[in-house]
Amino acid sequence: MQTLCRAAGTLVASMSRRPVEVYFDLLSQPSRAVLILLRAAGIPHVERPVALRKGEQNSPEFGRLNPMRKVPVIVDNGFVLTESVAILKYLASTYDVPQNWYPRDPQRRAKVDEYMAWQHLNTRMNTAKVFIFEVLIPQMTSQPVDDQKVSKALKDLEGTLDMLETMFLKDKPFLCGDDLTLADLLAICELMQPLGGDRDVLKERPKLASWRSRVQSALGKTFEDVHAIVYRLRNKSRL
Amino acid sequence: MQTLCRAAGTLVASMSRRPVEVYFDLLSQPSRAVLILLRAAGIPHVERPVALRKGEQNSPEFGRLNPMRKVPVIVDNGFVLTESVAILKYLASTYDVPQNWYPRDPQRRAKVDEYMAWQHLNTRMNTAKVFIFEVLIPQMTSQPVDDQKVSKALKDLEGTLDMLETMFLKDKPFLCGDDLTLADLLAICELMQPLGGDRDVLKERPKLASWRSRVQSALGKTFEDVHAIVYRLRNKSRL
Repeated sequence: MQTLCRAAGTLVASMSRRPVEVYFDLLSQPSRAVLILLRAAGIPHVERPVALRKGEQNSPEFGRLNPMRKVPVIVDNGFVLTESVAILKYLASTYDVPQNWYPRDPQRRAKVDEYMAWQHLNTRMNTAKVFIFEVLIPQMTSQPVDDQKVSKALKDLEGTLDMLETMFLKDKPFLCGDDLTLADLLAICELMQPLGGDRDVLKERPKLASWRSRVQSALGKTFEDVHAIVYRLRNKSRL
Repeated sequence: MQTLCRAAGTLVASMSRRPVEVYFDLLSQPSRAVLILLRAAGIPHVERPVALRKGEQNSPEFGRLNPMRKVPVIVDNGFVLTESVAILKYLASTYDVPQNWYPRDPQRRAKVDEYMAWQHLNTRMNTAKVFIFEVLIPQMTSQPVDDQKVSKALKDLEGTLDMLETMFLKDKPFLCGDDLTLADLLAICELMQPLGGDRDVLKERPKLASWRSRVQSALGKTFEDVHAIVYRLRNKSRL
């Protein structure tokens, strides 16, 4: 399925620019972040799903696009870019998206960069591990959940949540200040993932849970649409 | 020891700006990258070493600066920033450093961002593991090297080196094109680390070894000074 999305009111740097092609899987956290930015900011784009569960990333065509065989990938007028953090910055810098996402002020921008650099070995790695051990491996192998591995992953995640709360969020409404930025977008997509195994990692964290509600309501339907697959997984795990 | 460095010919955005304070340990790969940029680009700065082996990162003063207790950290006129990737971009964007480091062209900049996002879970994680298992843990515990762990780390590193060669370097002189960028700087500081255990991870990789020579000679004495500690560790490991 390919959907051509052109949101009304969008300005593009050059009108001769073709829509951005985006290769994604909705079960990939960073793919969801990129898709939300494209849709929320109304950037003209063509959606090209790559079903990881079917191994579609192993096709020769996809390998030519990304030798790492990972999603998301964008192609902008022939320019191929991988890595969600680089993609989000590129889209926010080259398309006319609202300034809140990636502020132009150097110090405010640096704080967004700081979170996006930090999250790789923290929010990203630790929430992914919880999901992999609790949902992905049991589903793929039909083996029971390895409780020891889940416990270890949850313990590591606690350290990440402590830092998210005390170092990044503090008493601000969003991770990098008064406005929603790329940092919040990346963070929420990662923190939603364990919900696929019916685990709300922010249940005992009222400050972070309020932040999540703020991000969720700011993103509205776009957020819900993109996360429908996570909710379906959660409902399935309750059966 | 604090050294006030003011290289001749440096331009600063504002002459009223105080020198950047940089907190670092020369045995931290990302610290070395930040220090090289500061020195090579002649950015006025004050060097504040934090000896990790003595636990100086655990002081209350340092904790107030960085609750994660990691180096590098910079303080620019009161603005505190952690995470080497964010620091390098901030310095290259707000100081008058040569454009090659972090190109202004959006697509060339995006390729530098792509490498800097990719490296966290690849070059950084995998070279660090080799060093930790081969040098750091044996030194700290006086136990023999765990060969199995080193072999596993080296195997993971091979995958990273394959990608560095085929996806990033290809047939270009530097990782992101014809010029030296922040990507080369971060990469070389990581790849030098296992040399502390007398292991040259690029020995069987002529293409990457030539790239290293190019980066090394472009950076000259600055590179050698900052890596003196790695060479000393290597010489010690040969005794």
